[in-house]
Amino acid sequence: MSISSSESAPSRNLKIGIVGFGPFAQFLSKTMIKQGHILTATSRSDYSELCAKLGISFFKDVIAFLEAENDVILICTSIISLQQVLNSMPLQHLKRPTLFADVLSVKEHPRTELLRVVPEDSDVLCTHPMYGEESGKDGWKGLNFMFERVRIRDEAICSSFLQIFESEGCRMLEMSCEEHDKLAAKSQFLTHVIARTLVELDIQYTPIDTKRFESLVKLKEGNMNLSFDLFSGLFVKNRFAQQELQNIELAFNKVKQKLIEKMNEDQD
Amino acid sequence: MSISSSESAPSRNLKIGIVGFGPFAQFLSKTMIKQGHILTATSRSDYSELCAKLGISFFKDVIAFLEAENDVILICTSIISLQQVLNSMPLQHLKRPTLFADVLSVKEHPRTELLRVVPEDSDVLCTHPMYGEESGKDGWKGLNFMFERVRIRDEAICSSFLQIFESEGCRMLEMSCEEHDKLAAKSQFLTHVIARTLVELDIQYTPIDTKRFESLVKLKEGNMNLSFDLFSGLFVKNRFAQQELQNIELAFNKVKQKLIEKMNEDQD
Repeated sequence: MSISSSESAPSRNLKIGIVGFGPFAQFLSKTMIKQGHILTATSRSDYSELCAKLGISFFKDVIAFLEAENDVILICTSIISLQQVLNSMPLQHLKRPTLFADVLSVKEHPRTELLRVVPEDSDVLCTHPMYGEESGKDGWKGLNFMFERVRIRDEAICSSFLQIFESEGCRMLEMSCEEHDKLAAKSQFLTHVIARTLVELDIQYTPIDTKRFESLVKLKEGNMNLSFDLFSGLFVKNRFAQQELQNIELAFNKVKQKLIEKMNEDQD
Repeated sequence: MSISSSESAPSRNLKIGIVGFGPFAQFLSKTMIKQGHILTATSRSDYSELCAKLGISFFKDVIAFLEAENDVILICTSIISLQQVLNSMPLQHLKRPTLFADVLSVKEHPRTELLRVVPEDSDVLCTHPMYGEESGKDGWKGLNFMFERVRIRDEAICSSFLQIFESEGCRMLEMSCEEHDKLAAKSQFLTHVIARTLVELDIQYTPIDTKRFESLVKLKEGNMNLSFDLFSGLFVKNRFAQQELQNIELAFNKVKQKLIEKMNEDQD
């Protein structure tokens, strides 16, 4: 019996190449750097100045990025741009087998896309840290981290990557990408629909707020910094979200119908 | 110059007769008893046992209730039943001028109804404590209390009644009933519509909840104990709520439309 399983192997510093250096990648990278990992990044926009400040090597040239012998290539693009970004990456320039991981907020879509483009000798790990800058601002302890080991041969690298989140105290949840998307449609997507509706309504604090209304204004305000690309990605690239949008509309219509019936009764 | 204005007059113990002894009246009465006020109650249902436990005299006979020489008659009926309850009260049995106050969650409607039925020599104060059993469970400090002095001659009684809430630390907000109903449609009523929609959807905690989704499940759960009578009253008896329901539907439809446009673009 081996005393050193892949699970308990000591975590090692990884060379992580980030693809797509938007706000969520910037947020994650701070913790990775703190933990001692070596980061590089590439992105459609030029983040070379910001990366220089953070101690991250920024590659404008994606071939140079791919040739840099990363242990992990971490996909942090928007959901909507994933396919185009992956299609634009000449993955034949990889020098060795690499773990491809993603952190997108839908999971079946990147799973399919990564299995389509990642070279057969490279591994695929799909993950979703269920938090962001706001909920994670005081650390990640107790926050949910979902993952599926889609195609893993190099257990040591995969385990070291998961350790980034485990060691910060995340609640590690292994489940299929399909199961994630079913649950996320009924939770995260629903939350965004409500929050976006509140943004459209432009709800504001009033002098006579209840505590429960205040929680809705906070929900709205937390949503205003999130991009429409994220929101529309949660819908367009999650087949369960489309049913959920119908469910929300049906539920609202039931509520409305009951109110109107009551009003008609009252007027009789 | 008088050194003792009505504002600074020492608060006195009041004889308060409560009309309608449902959960919200029960909740308020505990604090009133703690403060030393003498309570009586009448209600369409028989609450004599519960009242006996709380030290409140319960009157099945509304004439005896009216003849008991209360300083304040506090209306705690549901919004929907207010008119019927007031019509059933033979107010000519009052032995003396009395302050009629209400705590309903809409304000123009009780204002109109009280001015219609309350004897000319009695006073009218419309109030709305903007909290309930849940938000007020650890005391009322900092919670909003709205009121309009609709027709006040006996400043001492009115002031002593308001003192019940002021002394617990409520944020006292004097505004017109119309202004209240405008603001409440956009805050409290909206909150109930969202919460009821979440009840219809039967949203549940999942293993991968975000913090923001958890706040929506809490909102739904807090709403499940509230009656449909309250919710429908917020709609039927607040003329601004009807416009707000349309606004919510329009906002949702805009959000839906944007998502569907994005989906169509994606499929092109």
